[in-house]
Amino acid sequence: MEKNTDLIFAALFKLEEARQVIRDGLPSGLNQQEEMQLKEKISELKGIIQALETGTTGKKPGRIAGSIEVRTREEENINIQPIQAAGRLTLAARQAIIAYGDGYSTCDACRKPFRLDKISKPPIADFHTQLAQFVNMDQARVVPGARRGFQAVAQTVVEKGDSVIVSAFAHYTEFLAVEGAGGVVKEVPLNKDNIITADATAEKIEQVKLETGKLPTLVMIDHYDYQLANEHDVKGIAKVAHSYDIPFLYNGAYTVGVMPVDGKAVGADFVVGSGHKSMASPAPSGVLATTSEWADKVFRTTQMVGDVTKRKFGIKEVEMVGCTLMGSNLIAMMASFPEVKERTLHWDDEIKKINFFVDRLLTIDGSKVLSEYPRKHALTKVDTTGSFDRIAAIHKRRGFFLSDALSAKGIVGEFAGATRTWKLSTYGLSWEKVRYLADTFTEIAEHYELPITKQ
Amino acid sequence: MEKNTDLIFAALFKLEEARQVIRDGLPSGLNQQEEMQLKEKISELKGIIQALETGTTGKKPGRIAGSIEVRTREEENINIQPIQAAGRLTLAARQAIIAYGDGYSTCDACRKPFRLDKISKPPIADFHTQLAQFVNMDQARVVPGARRGFQAVAQTVVEKGDSVIVSAFAHYTEFLAVEGAGGVVKEVPLNKDNIITADATAEKIEQVKLETGKLPTLVMIDHYDYQLANEHDVKGIAKVAHSYDIPFLYNGAYTVGVMPVDGKAVGADFVVGSGHKSMASPAPSGVLATTSEWADKVFRTTQMVGDVTKRKFGIKEVEMVGCTLMGSNLIAMMASFPEVKERTLHWDDEIKKINFFVDRLLTIDGSKVLSEYPRKHALTKVDTTGSFDRIAAIHKRRGFFLSDALSAKGIVGEFAGATRTWKLSTYGLSWEKVRYLADTFTEIAEHYELPITKQ
Repeated sequence: MEKNTDLIFAALFKLEEARQVIRDGLPSGLNQQEEMQLKEKISELKGIIQALETGTTGKKPGRIAGSIEVRTREEENINIQPIQAAGRLTLAARQAIIAYGDGYSTCDACRKPFRLDKISKPPIADFHTQLAQFVNMDQARVVPGARRGFQAVAQTVVEKGDSVIVSAFAHYTEFLAVEGAGGVVKEVPLNKDNIITADATAEKIEQVKLETGKLPTLVMIDHYDYQLANEHDVKGIAKVAHSYDIPFLYNGAYTVGVMPVDGKAVGADFVVGSGHKSMASPAPSGVLATTSEWADKVFRTTQMVGDVTKRKFGIKEVEMVGCTLMGSNLIAMMASFPEVKERTLHWDDEIKKINFFVDRLLTIDGSKVLSEYPRKHALTKVDTTGSFDRIAAIHKRRGFFLSDALSAKGIVGEFAGATRTWKLSTYGLSWEKVRYLADTFTEIAEHYELPITKQ
Repeated sequence: MEKNTDLIFAALFKLEEARQVIRDGLPSGLNQQEEMQLKEKISELKGIIQALETGTTGKKPGRIAGSIEVRTREEENINIQPIQAAGRLTLAARQAIIAYGDGYSTCDACRKPFRLDKISKPPIADFHTQLAQFVNMDQARVVPGARRGFQAVAQTVVEKGDSVIVSAFAHYTEFLAVEGAGGVVKEVPLNKDNIITADATAEKIEQVKLETGKLPTLVMIDHYDYQLANEHDVKGIAKVAHSYDIPFLYNGAYTVGVMPVDGKAVGADFVVGSGHKSMASPAPSGVLATTSEWADKVFRTTQMVGDVTKRKFGIKEVEMVGCTLMGSNLIAMMASFPEVKERTLHWDDEIKKINFFVDRLLTIDGSKVLSEYPRKHALTKVDTTGSFDRIAAIHKRRGFFLSDALSAKGIVGEFAGATRTWKLSTYGLSWEKVRYLADTFTEIAEHYELPITKQ
């Protein structure tokens, strides 16, 4: 039986049509007309399955709601897009969103004290406990994206005009979180190896103190940054921050969910992770975990009292704006979680895969790796100015020749048109796919007669 | 063919297993082992379909990821839960989340200037334009829930200690948004009919001015409140707010997506809507729309510059924390949108349905409606202290006798155990379902020999 993505989607969509017939019916059962409709849907489904079995070319399912193309990127291709790799859903997560897509689907059994993280059916409360344990912190909340975690922390510890220490490789959402809270970012410069060190952080703190007369109120550093995915000395940096009595936020957008993270061992006051970036979850989703000490502050409950009605909503947390992910995003996070926990234990294999790929790329003369090497992360920035860009310089499609050649082999996710510096991730690809990926680059190089050094 | 929800889910889940086989394969095609696996999945699917056709009782699909029960609330029941009704996904939205569940699924074709609302494939940019038109405002952004819209506005216009005028029926998320921004809520009292009037708002503004020496910086009122879903005079209130030069936020959590909303006609500076509450979308999702005048402020772009790297992220909006709904939640909103637009034109029919139901309930002696009556909104609070609560007083299951009786007939979503005051919504139910619902209440009343006045 051959692979036929279109028909798989056609079958899924047809089943949703059948489901709609059931939804439209009374609880007491379908009427005659509905039974006929259901029968028709199932008969059409059987036709689709027959086409699958006989290898008939599938009619593409029409656009969703008339305007949205069906996305088959993960079915039809090897996707090396650097930020999409670890946010790909697991099978369980895909089943979860089918079952829990409706708006407030998590809230069927919401009882006193009426807060998302207290719901026990589905087991949301238990998931929150596990999530805190997973990053070895005392308490955790789900948030709509890592950025909302940065925001909550910044608004808790940053007053107008305060300085916040970030990395020279800080993600833009850290800038925005600080700006939103009225603070100012102060970047720690990179060393010659493009690493943020504890010493450089200490120096920066001293400099800020000298220039502004005040210590920064937060140090927020990415364990692995988004540009090169180099590892930065978060443990040393946390120690430095604490020596000035400044809280440390560990940005685990590229670590929580792909490799083991131990917040206490790092010395983090806050651990932030991204569901859609690294936890095989739909966007927006993420986690903010903290210590018992800081939980009272960042998860502080509302103190506001209605002046007329005297209403209070005491259990609701100000920085969370109450409940956070009240639907399928949370359930998908939960559904992916067992697999996500397991996969962090096999990070070493992911490192082998990226190094295998990079080593193969480096055999194409003139290719370089800009990230630290050997790689310690699946996300990697390479420089092919000395190899593929030489072809781009003379090719009528310019840099797009490479995208064309890759996509002809079913590889997508590189920055289309870029042949100088660009990023990729091999995260989650099977060894078979990694070899295919490396072979494809070699084949393209050979096709264009780029010199290759035998390994 | 009978309705068999379990088998429909079993078939959907089996197809996701087949899809996983395809995802795991190389772009060049499946290997022999994978072909066998796919064949096996399809053969199992055929078994499920056969069971559907022969009316075999379906084996319940197992728990998702071992711990999460499959949610069949909308398939097996009439759900009158007041906040779930209008967030139920459309068929198109369910198809959309199947295709776009993966983390950053919206970002395949993200090009300069790299912002979610500028992406044209899928047609996200166009959707933003339509969304603004839909509520008749100049600009719109999607946000992770209405609360994040309140938050963005509050943080834009509220300084520490500022007062914000809200309704005595304000939702708790408005309290939190104001508190997070450092402001203080000041409630406008209800009149004897439980309505917020323009006069009462003017009076409150004057009072705040007198007491604090400063005008409030924002007036934020729910068009229909969450407690009784009474209509409040938003147009008159906007006029009052503007007469003091105070911006007006129209809280459309219960209107945008179910009835026509014309922000300009209301005189709103900000219109906030909820995707999971009223736009047939997954949580969290929502919309914040504004005028050209206010767009520059609430959608202001970042001014932060890295002190070392001189980096700027000029296109990113501070209060949005950059991109907002980068995945299936947005695509589901888009997929539901044509149907959502259409359904707002049939709000009158929804009003007929709730009034039909309420009128029937009122025939059960002692029953009352606490919301304004005749109803102008599908969400309604009723008081059955004089009817069903009289049974609860002597029933061994107490108030749960009513939940038991309802759920035996496939009706869920009332507050379990409540027989005094409770809320429901008939939104989106077919007339057939509404009649079934009303009949069921009558039957329960008859069963317990509660007196009924013939209509």
